[in-house]
Amino acid sequence: MDFSVLQKQRSLYIPELPPSLQGSNVQVEFGEVPTVADQLDAQSIHRSFPLTYGQPLVHFVTSLNKAGHDTHSKKEQRQPIRVGVVFCGRQSPGGHNIICGLYDAIKSHNPMSTLIGFCGGTEGLFAQKTLEITEAIVATYRNQGGYDMLGRTKDQIRTGEQVNAALTACKALKLDGLVIIGGVTSNTDAAQLAETFAEAKCTTKVVGVPVTYYGDLKNQFVEANVGFDTICKVNSQLISNICTDALSAEKYYYFIRLMGRRASHVTLECALQAHPNMVILGEEVASSKLTLYDITKRICDAVQDRAEQGKNHGVILLPEGLIECIPEVYALLQEIHVLLKDGVSVDKISAQLSPWAAALFESMPPFIKKQLLLSPDSDESAQLSQIETEKLIAQLVEKEMEARTKSGAYKGKKFNAICHFFGYQARGSLPSKFDCDYAYVLGHVSHHLLAAGVNGYMATVTNLKDDVSKWQCGGAPFTAMMTVKRYLRGLGSSVIGKPSIHPVAVDLKGKPYKLLLRDSERFLMDDLYANSGPIQYEGPGSNSKSMCLSVEDQDYMGRVKELQAYIDKVRKIVKPGCSQEVLKAALSSMASIIEVLSLMTPATKDHVA
Amino acid sequence: MDFSVLQKQRSLYIPELPPSLQGSNVQVEFGEVPTVADQLDAQSIHRSFPLTYGQPLVHFVTSLNKAGHDTHSKKEQRQPIRVGVVFCGRQSPGGHNIICGLYDAIKSHNPMSTLIGFCGGTEGLFAQKTLEITEAIVATYRNQGGYDMLGRTKDQIRTGEQVNAALTACKALKLDGLVIIGGVTSNTDAAQLAETFAEAKCTTKVVGVPVTYYGDLKNQFVEANVGFDTICKVNSQLISNICTDALSAEKYYYFIRLMGRRASHVTLECALQAHPNMVILGEEVASSKLTLYDITKRICDAVQDRAEQGKNHGVILLPEGLIECIPEVYALLQEIHVLLKDGVSVDKISAQLSPWAAALFESMPPFIKKQLLLSPDSDESAQLSQIETEKLIAQLVEKEMEARTKSGAYKGKKFNAICHFFGYQARGSLPSKFDCDYAYVLGHVSHHLLAAGVNGYMATVTNLKDDVSKWQCGGAPFTAMMTVKRYLRGLGSSVIGKPSIHPVAVDLKGKPYKLLLRDSERFLMDDLYANSGPIQYEGPGSNSKSMCLSVEDQDYMGRVKELQAYIDKVRKIVKPGCSQEVLKAALSSMASIIEVLSLMTPATKDHVA
Repeated sequence: MDFSVLQKQRSLYIPELPPSLQGSNVQVEFGEVPTVADQLDAQSIHRSFPLTYGQPLVHFVTSLNKAGHDTHSKKEQRQPIRVGVVFCGRQSPGGHNIICGLYDAIKSHNPMSTLIGFCGGTEGLFAQKTLEITEAIVATYRNQGGYDMLGRTKDQIRTGEQVNAALTACKALKLDGLVIIGGVTSNTDAAQLAETFAEAKCTTKVVGVPVTYYGDLKNQFVEANVGFDTICKVNSQLISNICTDALSAEKYYYFIRLMGRRASHVTLECALQAHPNMVILGEEVASSKLTLYDITKRICDAVQDRAEQGKNHGVILLPEGLIECIPEVYALLQEIHVLLKDGVSVDKISAQLSPWAAALFESMPPFIKKQLLLSPDSDESAQLSQIETEKLIAQLVEKEMEARTKSGAYKGKKFNAICHFFGYQARGSLPSKFDCDYAYVLGHVSHHLLAAGVNGYMATVTNLKDDVSKWQCGGAPFTAMMTVKRYLRGLGSSVIGKPSIHPVAVDLKGKPYKLLLRDSERFLMDDLYANSGPIQYEGPGSNSKSMCLSVEDQDYMGRVKELQAYIDKVRKIVKPGCSQEVLKAALSSMASIIEVLSLMTPATKDHVA
Repeated sequence: MDFSVLQKQRSLYIPELPPSLQGSNVQVEFGEVPTVADQLDAQSIHRSFPLTYGQPLVHFVTSLNKAGHDTHSKKEQRQPIRVGVVFCGRQSPGGHNIICGLYDAIKSHNPMSTLIGFCGGTEGLFAQKTLEITEAIVATYRNQGGYDMLGRTKDQIRTGEQVNAALTACKALKLDGLVIIGGVTSNTDAAQLAETFAEAKCTTKVVGVPVTYYGDLKNQFVEANVGFDTICKVNSQLISNICTDALSAEKYYYFIRLMGRRASHVTLECALQAHPNMVILGEEVASSKLTLYDITKRICDAVQDRAEQGKNHGVILLPEGLIECIPEVYALLQEIHVLLKDGVSVDKISAQLSPWAAALFESMPPFIKKQLLLSPDSDESAQLSQIETEKLIAQLVEKEMEARTKSGAYKGKKFNAICHFFGYQARGSLPSKFDCDYAYVLGHVSHHLLAAGVNGYMATVTNLKDDVSKWQCGGAPFTAMMTVKRYLRGLGSSVIGKPSIHPVAVDLKGKPYKLLLRDSERFLMDDLYANSGPIQYEGPGSNSKSMCLSVEDQDYMGRVKELQAYIDKVRKIVKPGCSQEVLKAALSSMASIIEVLSLMTPATKDHVA
């Protein structure tokens, strides 16, 4: 690597630590034993994880006798520890900082402690391919993107063989702790590993760190995932650039597909940042059971409405997971995947589909047919990054607009689409300040969890929307984050899945989505594009956090102003003897007040007189 | 538009002016009459532009009696002026700042002066669709991307009808000046307009501004084009992200096609910033007459060499203009374009190609065939943004690697390619600080040229690689930038083209290219990826300029150090009676000294003892 000016400067940046992690007297407190999200699942999780289920929450608290006391009190002689660390899954910006934080923490604990990195992900763990991490290595990767300090390959520790290989490695290397950096599947694997290690009386403790740019590892303990902030900022910048482009040239509709797997968190966040004209979230489509035709029609209606206002351009965001959320396409994909599993060759699949699925399949353009026939990914979903949903939808819209033009229903200018997929461009980015800070603190937390001797925990930092000085650090047992899926199998019988940490979809009742809904009509018609610009490291914007994280504050600031404006409006117009018209306007304003109030948290409500 | 935090902050930024443009006493100096690049062309240009050829250079100089004198001396009563401004061609980041600079300059000249924008590019000029530009409008667009203040449509003022419409508009609106913001073709059109206006004794003076993110409007007077710096920075960031990604996953070759039309300036600059493994410039291919097969072989050899070092990943940059630079493809495209011009329908073209061209055409994958058959662009080159050259080359490489695997020549891992086209993502970006500054100063210069009463000039700023305080401002006649193309038409007869400002290709003898050449072997094998990161507006990196612009300094700093290191090395090892081996090493070091010296300018050489 050659370092640019900015990279050099970033490599010197040392993130701040929250007060509870400062100094050498980090205090551990054990809290209550958390309940799982669904009590129905508790028994099943307990059965699968007898040794690691039912453990208490861990909090790190500011030591009361902090300042200066260290030097007076006889310093506790701490044993050096040996810790292993492994990258699992897709590279998220900030991943390196977890290792840097972990390194700094274990070395400040005892300079004789050892941090061992596994090269090439879990494959390196199984093969005991190690690299002792030194100050010189860490110095090269502080606040830098990618996973290239160690690399990555396969993303699994799942089969008996794999788990045994991991166990053998940890024993052979005499590890006190193993830190697994990854998303939902890797942390589920980590949970299994922790249970197996406990059962085998292996002294290696397992700790996971929530790192996935998909942003779908969320629960009562985990507010955000490392990488999500950066990925959304880089993509929002590009989307905003395209919005500006659309507005300058005034002749194209841009269809942009965004990464994010099954959940649409990235797309939602980018929409909140960039204000494109339209967004279609997978979760909306699934919940409203929208068909391909419904989606097409919705977009065509929007194009038509805009054309009536003289606007022949626009930007439409689609998540890569959308294709699996369209009910009829999902059913088709399920049939294809079953046939592929049965070993049916690709060219014979079409003939073996059910008549209904075959009809849908045959109606698709050739490029999509080919893509739908790809073997599913390791997590059994379709190869979402390979299916050009944006091109499919753009073609369907183009066809429908032609039909509307012919029938005379549409009289506007010719519809022109340009398609984009924003996938790999963002993944290797320099991490944002937030991701640098969050990851670094999580690295420290991982160390403190291991030093506290716990096993089967995920490192957690909460209150992230506030300053680092208010961040709260701790750990929660993996098992407390698990849910169990039940699949119907006809006539009332159901299959119970393995307890896992499951990816979480966008909450259609959550604030970020409501914020989008509130503004969607204005975004659609008024071109309120915003460009949050390139990620900044100094000056304005450098401390920004994702909208999804900071929406409470946003709510508060914006909401209060809005409410006051509405209330003023009502006060001004409602007078004794005013006309029916005026009363009607007042009622409409009051409806808005109620709508705004309904979006506010109780805490926010208190601030409005 | 909704403004983000960063956008708001940027809108408050006021670029600095060079000393010669500060204060209200800007002095105009007329310099020598410049000679055209090729003396053979002079006569032809003179004939085509009798009234605007042979004009002197214009310089703005620091007024000697500057400080405070204004208030004492009776302030000259300046007449208010009326100026029109029009965006031509593709939107370049920084375009808005030209209008902002122009606005500030004419208002400080006389607050009663008027700036009129034409809406929708040259179409708006012809239709006299105007917008009076006010402080409120300018405030919304200061330092912002896009061309949405006025929009743009067609890019031409070329036909008699178009020129007459422009003349009528300028007369009707009583314009003292017309500022045309655009690239090579728009400035050639501007030159024609200036000549026509002079001939018609129209009092509107025409001034052009070099704005094109392709960076191909370069000559002895013009060092850089507005937009190029931003576009290269945004693209380099994405390329670097992908390099990091390649290094983290270690299993993909990324083929990235970059915008830039026929010339490869953007690709060269991005390569110098990001250090990808390989770059294939159109100019290299044209100059060495490399065939598709040569290019494929070259990449395959590189893949093979890297595999031998255990590297199964890499990043390869290709300019969109590459496809037209491959001799046999160029010939094929020429045949296709002639047939299209003759009205042959697309499905019949293949049958009417010469046997040789038909054979090449039929060997192409279907998607490329379709793309090669697209009608040429307005400037008669192929629709470069639509031809997926990166996919073609990746497929050819894949095929060849399979063949080499079968034959046993290649024993490495399976070759996997991922393709990208970086086109529209960068165009609407917030402009870099350099583009903001340069554009704003050019806006001021345009005003001063009009105030000096000259016609048919391009606004120029030189010495750009230094601080703004050292920038030199002036204007050069369009006609001095023109060249004439001569096309052979068999047996010694030739056709002479119309004098034009032609796009300039990458100079294979220039320093930026030599810099790339020097490092290309190391870039290829050693993964020296550099990530200049997102564009910064404060702190480190915010004042960076494109490598092509700053290469002299780079040369100087890097070169001197390198030379001293080599000289030290030679001094150390060459001693009386030293071995043949040592002498050989010394000779090799001395060869390096000579190579480094050959890349230095005479000025730089003086600094080496």
